[in-house]
Amino acid sequence: MTPPALGEFEIIARFFAPLAAGEAGALGLLDDAAVFAVPPGRSVVVSTDAIVESVHFLNDDSGDDVAAKVLAVGFSDLAAMGSDALGYTLALALPKDWGCEKLEQWLNGFATGLGTEQQRIGVTLLGGDTVATPGPLTLSVTVLGTVETGRALTRAGAKPGDRVFVSGSIGDAALGLALLTGKLTAPGRAAHAALVNRYRRPTARLALGRRLTGLATAACDVSDGLVADLGHICRASGVAARIDAARIPVSAAAAEVLAAGAAKPSDLVEGGDDYELVFTVPPAQAATAQGIGAALGIAVTDIGRIEQPASQEDSVVRLLDAVGGDVTPSRIGYRHF
Amino acid sequence: MTPPALGEFEIIARFFAPLAAGEAGALGLLDDAAVFAVPPGRSVVVSTDAIVESVHFLNDDSGDDVAAKVLAVGFSDLAAMGSDALGYTLALALPKDWGCEKLEQWLNGFATGLGTEQQRIGVTLLGGDTVATPGPLTLSVTVLGTVETGRALTRAGAKPGDRVFVSGSIGDAALGLALLTGKLTAPGRAAHAALVNRYRRPTARLALGRRLTGLATAACDVSDGLVADLGHICRASGVAARIDAARIPVSAAAAEVLAAGAAKPSDLVEGGDDYELVFTVPPAQAATAQGIGAALGIAVTDIGRIEQPASQEDSVVRLLDAVGGDVTPSRIGYRHF
Repeated sequence: MTPPALGEFEIIARFFAPLAAGEAGALGLLDDAAVFAVPPGRSVVVSTDAIVESVHFLNDDSGDDVAAKVLAVGFSDLAAMGSDALGYTLALALPKDWGCEKLEQWLNGFATGLGTEQQRIGVTLLGGDTVATPGPLTLSVTVLGTVETGRALTRAGAKPGDRVFVSGSIGDAALGLALLTGKLTAPGRAAHAALVNRYRRPTARLALGRRLTGLATAACDVSDGLVADLGHICRASGVAARIDAARIPVSAAAAEVLAAGAAKPSDLVEGGDDYELVFTVPPAQAATAQGIGAALGIAVTDIGRIEQPASQEDSVVRLLDAVGGDVTPSRIGYRHF
Repeated sequence: MTPPALGEFEIIARFFAPLAAGEAGALGLLDDAAVFAVPPGRSVVVSTDAIVESVHFLNDDSGDDVAAKVLAVGFSDLAAMGSDALGYTLALALPKDWGCEKLEQWLNGFATGLGTEQQRIGVTLLGGDTVATPGPLTLSVTVLGTVETGRALTRAGAKPGDRVFVSGSIGDAALGLALLTGKLTAPGRAAHAALVNRYRRPTARLALGRRLTGLATAACDVSDGLVADLGHICRASGVAARIDAARIPVSAAAAEVLAAGAAKPSDLVEGGDDYELVFTVPPAQAATAQGIGAALGIAVTDIGRIEQPASQEDSVVRLLDAVGGDVTPSRIGYRHF
């Protein structure tokens, strides 16, 4: 099949330059690099993520969906650091065997989706690269933001006694993926739509993350699964965590699936892609954390506490049921390899 | 084929965390993002590039070669902006069908190559992502540096009368690629090795770029080909350029190929991947530019001049032979699509 007739420069001019128009330092995407100033007293926060068709998103996800996902995947990392969001760069490897029509249609949807999302987040495209690949559609996003110097949230800092909080609801994206891949049948159409939407169109919790600086002792985004990501905090902080399984927030749609017996509670805490925040807060500040959630209209749920680990190697997450039985899933987090 | 038994976290710990050890803000690659401070009075410069196996490098290029190439591709953009180099992030999509042994061997070579190059450049790895792909090996690099605020070199700023300079020698990488793909036979073994090395192991001209701030009126790196990249400067600056073909610097190895009649001079100016700098300098500063080259041990050659364009649409590069005949190649630059 012949390569599509759209050149790299035409793709940039038509689809991407308009997304960079708000930031003079992006130089219209016409230069070798972008330049941006950093306010005094603030440090730059940077994170890079990659997503691959049929691995991190589905072949029939629209350009619009992929745009929302790649930005959520990226900016969720800034949210977890308590960073504000400034801009992003994209590397796009577009399949060589897409015909011109498919390429144009996909880029149209993708650019429209980026435009909507970047306006919502308050960022602009700063630069990137568009190449052809004999393989699947592959995207990489680098997100940039700033945080008051010395105030970035990290995964290290959780202390025994701290309460463990999680934003939003957990497990929706995993159920949405299971629905889309035919591994699960939803009890109702509304639940199906809600769960699929959480998988396809996640939202980075930037406003919440920013408000947690100076309050949370540690934070991480829920991308690998709640137990896995809280485990990252535990290992980085040298602590253990004890979670009350019954307190993990579940959406109405997920509750419907659980009630129908179509999924187990452990499916929810093992699955990734929720892009919620899990964070720890000193017990005296727990009410403040809940107040921040209320002010932002985001559920912020106390799901357990940080404990002294039994040994240095014991930086683990234990999930307990109502009578104290250990219901920690054995398979923790998504393994890419 | 079963996926390799190396997990993402093991890959990070074994191969990549050591490359981030020099920078506390990389947080050992264990956190959601990296944090770095920017000195007062300086702005951040950022650029993202992607390279794909069999498109931008060859299937049998070693991990070591790919490491050198991806960093040169990235940092060359900072060189063109007159930026210093601070760090980089990497997104790595590793083929699922690589066995464990191949994966380990490749990562070993790649990490070793990154270590050597980042030490030479004076940067550290700040973060990234490693994912599996059913497609070819795909890499994306985001490079970060800083420049004195307001002093970044851009492509816009060249003025009629400015001299056009280029660093190093032009066309070696294109000949190296032609040798590796069997499209060309080198006259001698030394020439073969030299040209292949220029293709596989390019070097970003960071030291030169930094010295050109406040001196050059415009700059661009030679990644698409000399005529194409100088064309970028002309369009961004609204000027035309007139280049003396005979003055374009050619390496001894390339001269040997030309003398043997195995390649034409136009092959050299059409080919990309040299990662030299092409820049413009007011005529009164031409000697200063040459002095900077001499001080750095880098050839800096005056190849022509910037002219008033005949019309607004005429921002073009003309290549003239010794008697003023137009020898501009018709095929300008590399088209990815």
